[in-house]
Amino acid sequence: MNNNHLDVVIGEYNNLKKLIKTDDLKSDEILNAIESVYDSSNNVLKEYNVVELKSSVPGKQYFSYAEDKKLSRAINKNLYETGLANVYTFFKALKNSSYDQIKAEDITSACYVIAISFCAIIDLFKVGDQKTPGTFFEYFIGHLFSRKLQINPQKKLKILNLDIENANLPTDYTFDLGPNKAKFHVPIKTSTRERVIQVWAHQRVLDGIYGVGRFLGTLVCLTETKRNKQKREVTEICLPHQWRLYQMFIAQLTRVYYLDMPKAYENLNKVFPKIVVQPFGVFFSEVDSLTE
Amino acid sequence: MNNNHLDVVIGEYNNLKKLIKTDDLKSDEILNAIESVYDSSNNVLKEYNVVELKSSVPGKQYFSYAEDKKLSRAINKNLYETGLANVYTFFKALKNSSYDQIKAEDITSACYVIAISFCAIIDLFKVGDQKTPGTFFEYFIGHLFSRKLQINPQKKLKILNLDIENANLPTDYTFDLGPNKAKFHVPIKTSTRERVIQVWAHQRVLDGIYGVGRFLGTLVCLTETKRNKQKREVTEICLPHQWRLYQMFIAQLTRVYYLDMPKAYENLNKVFPKIVVQPFGVFFSEVDSLTE
Repeated sequence: MNNNHLDVVIGEYNNLKKLIKTDDLKSDEILNAIESVYDSSNNVLKEYNVVELKSSVPGKQYFSYAEDKKLSRAINKNLYETGLANVYTFFKALKNSSYDQIKAEDITSACYVIAISFCAIIDLFKVGDQKTPGTFFEYFIGHLFSRKLQINPQKKLKILNLDIENANLPTDYTFDLGPNKAKFHVPIKTSTRERVIQVWAHQRVLDGIYGVGRFLGTLVCLTETKRNKQKREVTEICLPHQWRLYQMFIAQLTRVYYLDMPKAYENLNKVFPKIVVQPFGVFFSEVDSLTE
Repeated sequence: MNNNHLDVVIGEYNNLKKLIKTDDLKSDEILNAIESVYDSSNNVLKEYNVVELKSSVPGKQYFSYAEDKKLSRAINKNLYETGLANVYTFFKALKNSSYDQIKAEDITSACYVIAISFCAIIDLFKVGDQKTPGTFFEYFIGHLFSRKLQINPQKKLKILNLDIENANLPTDYTFDLGPNKAKFHVPIKTSTRERVIQVWAHQRVLDGIYGVGRFLGTLVCLTETKRNKQKREVTEICLPHQWRLYQMFIAQLTRVYYLDMPKAYENLNKVFPKIVVQPFGVFFSEVDSLTE
């Protein structure tokens, strides 16, 4: 590994982190910083070999980037290759806030490439660092929501102060569309597994404090793949039965969006209780109807 | 480190794991196996030096066992020393199922020593292994509930099968005291932090499926200490404001028991919504009244 190249990626990421502190997540500056993180990540990855993985997911092929014996997380081959062709069209659409000319599935694949490229770099060169990919993914998806809605998010909400001294509730990103409109509650995770119950529980707290229906819970996830290290085999870890119990007994999420949509969650769109699980690109065309 | 001694501890732990599979958690065999894990752990620890830690927790002193530059998790000095004097009295009480002669606080300190000794060994000799201490702690506390209640727990519950194919709900330990009695739902954690919301959310699912009040949620935790590696400083990570919101808006836990009771949670016994947080030893004297 040429360390200078890695330094460029980390430098661009640190620049993004600095801009985040200005509290203007929808800004052009942050969009440019995200594009620079992607550009530098993509440049580094071009230098590395790919290793095919054994896929246990029907209809999906996966590979990893490799550095010596280290492998990046699993990358969905078809989604990645399609995304590479769409990514600059998508950046252009973001810059012009004009999404009519780009199909939902092309948005999904472009977002996948942007997210997974940076994650792969961190996997290879900062082994064991789970936090940095998660933080970047949160910034990236948060920016897309902000930019599409033209509203900056909050990360804490006022709560009615009876006898609780601390009158703020820390939350995931929330977006306030103004009086008499629903607000978005947007948890963002690179993967969920058994931790997903937290998302429904946070939604429940918001429902309890502010009234059911006030916040639209829209979970955004990168993927649910797991790569077995020894066997180089990729599986998707999905818990559809648990999700149905959470949706029935804890709270109701309005949408779950995935960049790499797991097979096992597609069926949740068709059964009771209905959980609408969609590729993330759909958000751009349906968001206006969600808040009507 | 004399590797033979470590091998004895791991051997005793593996023996315990094997006995767990017999599904008789309340058995004398499992009690004996837990005692053997403790005996061997205690023998190993005697050979090691202790390092005093800087405590930011008012009224509590902490130390770590040390192996070269590796340190075990923080150990509450007073609780540990008191516990060392009580541990065999407690094992004897367990064997005879006779708890009248032993004070609640002596049960708490004895349990603390048994739990923390094994955890310290794993900290020193299996760096980064969080799972093994957590699993041992779950077996240990699960055994104490089983033995006191004279009932073996379940880890899954039947759910009413409408159109969900999988009619089982995986849970933490639950104890069924029979018809017309409340049942216990017993999550067991070495520490909770922000993950604690899962406990309230699981309680909510049980309330939703089986009716509010059917399962008494009794969370059991070892400690909430965090040791800063560089500064060798111990703090307690507590989120009392969040706990109050969860107790108001997600579900109601009946008890939270700690072996090393955090200062910041004591006050929850006195404010609205009341959350009863007690040293674990209290369980033995109050359990009968909880299910009346």
